[in-house]
Amino acid sequence: MFSERIDRLTSSLVRDILSATQQPGMISFAGGLPAPDELPVPDWSSIPASAAQYGPSEGEPALREAIAEHARGVGIECVASQVLVVSGSQQGIDLVSKLFIDPGTPMITEAPTYLAALQSFELFGAVCHGVPLGPEGIDAGRLREVARETDARLAYVIPTFQNPSGTCYSAETRSAVARAADELGLTLFEDDPYRELVYDDVDRTPICARLTKTSWVYQSSFSKSFMPGIRVGYLIASPDLMPHLVRLKQATDLHTNRFGQWLAHGHLTSPGLAERLTHLRSAYSAKRDAMDVALGEHFGELAEWSTPPGGLFFWLRLRTPIDTRALLPAMLERGVAFMPGEVFFPTTAPESGYMRLNFSHASPEQMDRGLAILVRAVQETAG
Amino acid sequence: MFSERIDRLTSSLVRDILSATQQPGMISFAGGLPAPDELPVPDWSSIPASAAQYGPSEGEPALREAIAEHARGVGIECVASQVLVVSGSQQGIDLVSKLFIDPGTPMITEAPTYLAALQSFELFGAVCHGVPLGPEGIDAGRLREVARETDARLAYVIPTFQNPSGTCYSAETRSAVARAADELGLTLFEDDPYRELVYDDVDRTPICARLTKTSWVYQSSFSKSFMPGIRVGYLIASPDLMPHLVRLKQATDLHTNRFGQWLAHGHLTSPGLAERLTHLRSAYSAKRDAMDVALGEHFGELAEWSTPPGGLFFWLRLRTPIDTRALLPAMLERGVAFMPGEVFFPTTAPESGYMRLNFSHASPEQMDRGLAILVRAVQETAG
Repeated sequence: MFSERIDRLTSSLVRDILSATQQPGMISFAGGLPAPDELPVPDWSSIPASAAQYGPSEGEPALREAIAEHARGVGIECVASQVLVVSGSQQGIDLVSKLFIDPGTPMITEAPTYLAALQSFELFGAVCHGVPLGPEGIDAGRLREVARETDARLAYVIPTFQNPSGTCYSAETRSAVARAADELGLTLFEDDPYRELVYDDVDRTPICARLTKTSWVYQSSFSKSFMPGIRVGYLIASPDLMPHLVRLKQATDLHTNRFGQWLAHGHLTSPGLAERLTHLRSAYSAKRDAMDVALGEHFGELAEWSTPPGGLFFWLRLRTPIDTRALLPAMLERGVAFMPGEVFFPTTAPESGYMRLNFSHASPEQMDRGLAILVRAVQETAG
Repeated sequence: MFSERIDRLTSSLVRDILSATQQPGMISFAGGLPAPDELPVPDWSSIPASAAQYGPSEGEPALREAIAEHARGVGIECVASQVLVVSGSQQGIDLVSKLFIDPGTPMITEAPTYLAALQSFELFGAVCHGVPLGPEGIDAGRLREVARETDARLAYVIPTFQNPSGTCYSAETRSAVARAADELGLTLFEDDPYRELVYDDVDRTPICARLTKTSWVYQSSFSKSFMPGIRVGYLIASPDLMPHLVRLKQATDLHTNRFGQWLAHGHLTSPGLAERLTHLRSAYSAKRDAMDVALGEHFGELAEWSTPPGGLFFWLRLRTPIDTRALLPAMLERGVAFMPGEVFFPTTAPESGYMRLNFSHASPEQMDRGLAILVRAVQETAG
């Protein structure tokens, strides 16, 4: 009765976790939720009356211009006609999946990688081949090998404050990956939602800015630095891909909600933007540091981790690797949500014994209480 | 390089038309755009501060409750857990396509039917078998035959003020189609965006309200009776389909923008709703009547049509059937947009010589001027 893709609809684990985090009193290390205190108050006055009407599939022209200008500022040579406004980054992943993936299509992801991207790729039938993440990113030599072995033509990467690992690719790795993609003719899909959440001095130039030949899609979002509730993100793509992406967007939801687009435009063109981002970075880096200290106290002997130079997550490797999915039901019952690491690995390259812990949402007191509950469960299970 | 579905991405005709209608001065009979004067002013005060944050994939609980209550009022027995808020009806079509359609999947549509639904079904690989629309809807006997001949398990219908034809199924046809679907085990996907735009006294009870056994999806939208710019619509589905639809929704865009959802909630629960709808119906039925008169003056000898009892469109059948797509480029140049009828027929059942003309958007003066330009082009081409 159903399509064959429904057999590939993966478990509702994430949805269960996210809906658990809606419960009052829950200490959530699970999502990538902005801190409630950091969410701005919407400036409704910036929205024209015409925004109540249908709009163009590509997005508001003024927003596309502002995004293109912003992207040029981070190194991506582009014009507004290469910008497609999407209904959050998840839709960008859906559109790119529609453009490239048939059942059985091989593609490359980092291992680990963003869970909801994996879900979308696999829903469309992709066979995701993982390239292991090291402290400086993926190894370009290994990328070449996997691409040749699997005949993959598409690679999905999150080079800056990677989800789930927090890894930030070094400048050398960024250049090496760009060279490999150009030489292989590998289409690069670069997801960059966390770049504004930077706490240490690191290179963040997009890999797409270093490409010279191959097709590419660069994606970012207003969910992490502005407001997720508006569901507005964007793609910027090489000109060969745009006509297809725009038609797919039209067939998917006609266009993105216009009030959200105008709020995003107000955010991106605000004279106070730099100041707002400085404040956000300072608030989140303080939270990161507090989490680092709390982790040291609770998990110092049980796990290891690198302090992430940006983004929203710590990625813990347990010294005794247990399947952390087994901890989850009891944790949710005790009021603590976290993301088991297993779900971030492509099915072709499973690994155990990791946990992803968000530090932006919980208060310092909640961090301490939540980690104490979590560490007890790990100790009980690891024995 | 691309997925095989990209070969099925149909032409950008509609997008070209819609983007042409954005040009100032264009007289548009093309879209299903609400009249600018009828768009309400958003009541931002109804939006809670928490709506800036991520929300549940299913939609705002308060909105789901309000939708379920509204749907019970029109005859659909349902509870809030059967409601899925979507980012406009087009997304509902995308989700239902994902749930049911593989390349080669046979399904049934009306002939003609909603163009953008056809595009989505065909993009996913459906083979759409058209059942001809008569003045009272599709013939249930013919529906049974086509379902048996093609082994189709899914039927998409728009029984109330159908797009493009304006047809409203009679009560007898609604019951007969429901009986046929139940007996065949045919999943019914009923699209009902126009039901509030009713001008004459007709039966509008959803077919889904008359089903007793088979699975169903009932869909409606806030775009026609409230504001399209918010991109908020909803599905209500039989309980067997909901878990899949919710997961597909999550993989597609996480959730629908929350500001739009709260505005829709304000609209649906407003004490002034009935009065607002009465005003809207009166304004649009006056426009319909004006268009009817103007059509009589300009097209009386060249075409025939029924006066639609609701909705947004006249459906003209030219007495000399020409391919009306050929008229379009010159019309757009002369500042008049319309929808050629050919594009509304499934590729398995093509027909020529129809035009869909929207009456809600143009002013009476524009109607007269636009139809004069259009009739001249038809005369020139039909000879």
